[in-house]
Amino acid sequence: MNITSVNTYDAALPGGHYSQATVAGNVIFVSGQLPVRPLAGESVKDDISEQTYQALSNVLNIVKAAGGDITTIARTTIYAVDVKHWEEINRVYASFFGPVKPARSIITVAGLHHGFLVEIEAVAFTI
Amino acid sequence: MNITSVNTYDAALPGGHYSQATVAGNVIFVSGQLPVRPLAGESVKDDISEQTYQALSNVLNIVKAAGGDITTIARTTIYAVDVKHWEEINRVYASFFGPVKPARSIITVAGLHHGFLVEIEAVAFTI
Amino acid sequence: MNITSVNTYDAALPGGHYSQATVAGNVIFVSGQLPVRPLAGESVKDDISEQTYQALSNVLNIVKAAGGDITTIARTTIYAVDVKHWEEINRVYASFFGPVKPARSIITVAGLHHGFLVEIEAVAFTI
Repeated sequence: MNITSVNTYDAALPGGHYSQATVAGNVIFVSGQLPVRPLAGESVKDDISEQTYQALSNVLNIVKAAGGDITTIARTTIYAVDVKHWEEINRVYASFFGPVKPARSIITVAGLHHGFLVEIEAVAFTI
Repeated sequence: MNITSVNTYDAALPGGHYSQATVAGNVIFVSGQLPVRPLAGESVKDDISEQTYQALSNVLNIVKAAGGDITTIARTTIYAVDVKHWEEINRVYASFFGPVKPARSIITVAGLHHGFLVEIEAVAFTI
Repeated sequence: MNITSVNTYDAALPGGHYSQATVAGNVIFVSGQLPVRPLAGESVKDDISEQTYQALSNVLNIVKAAGGDITTIARTTIYAVDVKHWEEINRVYASFFGPVKPARSIITVAGLHHGFLVEIEAVAFTI
């Protein structure tokens, strides 16, 4: 199996030794995305709603660059720093995905890089 | 790739914007399952043994509804709130799976929704 | 789908009810690997650099035993106990993988078994 790396300026660039996503056959593995704006690389330090939206936007733009779309996202994992953010994360997430409902786990972690509140990764497929 | 959602009354219903599982080709992605009983939606507030068993039961029933069985579970991830529960989780898990040994990671998280002690997700395949 | 278990003496043996990895079709699911040396089963209690290298070495040896190689690792998940270790983990990881850049998430967990500092799991493919 030949694994290819996905690189797009439509999402935050990698901050370490990883690809935004890899593609293996028709499977797209999206790296954990933080609430960082593309190009400017500006951190979204606003509330959990804005951070959730920006992380989701990075995920989706990477999926699109890899040949998928919102309907081909099969699983997401949400890493949050506080269980109290669960309801608001779910609200923004529901608005973002609309009728699409990937498998999902929300995990409360001991901390995220740079003090962010949320990080989101995904497994998707090419169209 | 067409992603389909799995819905079964044999496992706890989703408590947010997600499917119990999605199926992409022959791959089944099961959402993180909490120790909640099907239909009644009753939380299992008993000890870690009961919680582990109920979460596993939800996972397996979803896998079956998606077209797999216990032998086609390839990976599980166990999120626990305390490393001290590891031995008992492993004991119940071993009894549940018998000769089947999926790849597995046990992760200690900073907290789970509703004060639960354990959550379990899985990747499986259709028969 | 027939799921097979991978067993190799070139990596630390399982410490619970799981396989070092499972293989489903051409997909390899590697269990979370701790910094434990093969055969001797000796724990690497040195600094984060040594622990990261040993965990990665276990992952790669399991991938090889399952029919893949370093270029067919599509995703890794790194569980670390302290965000302060991020830079050093990334440095050792970059040296280990060279030009290969799997999708990756680094998650800060509330604790690992036996007091280890890092655990690494992966999804890979057969060659």
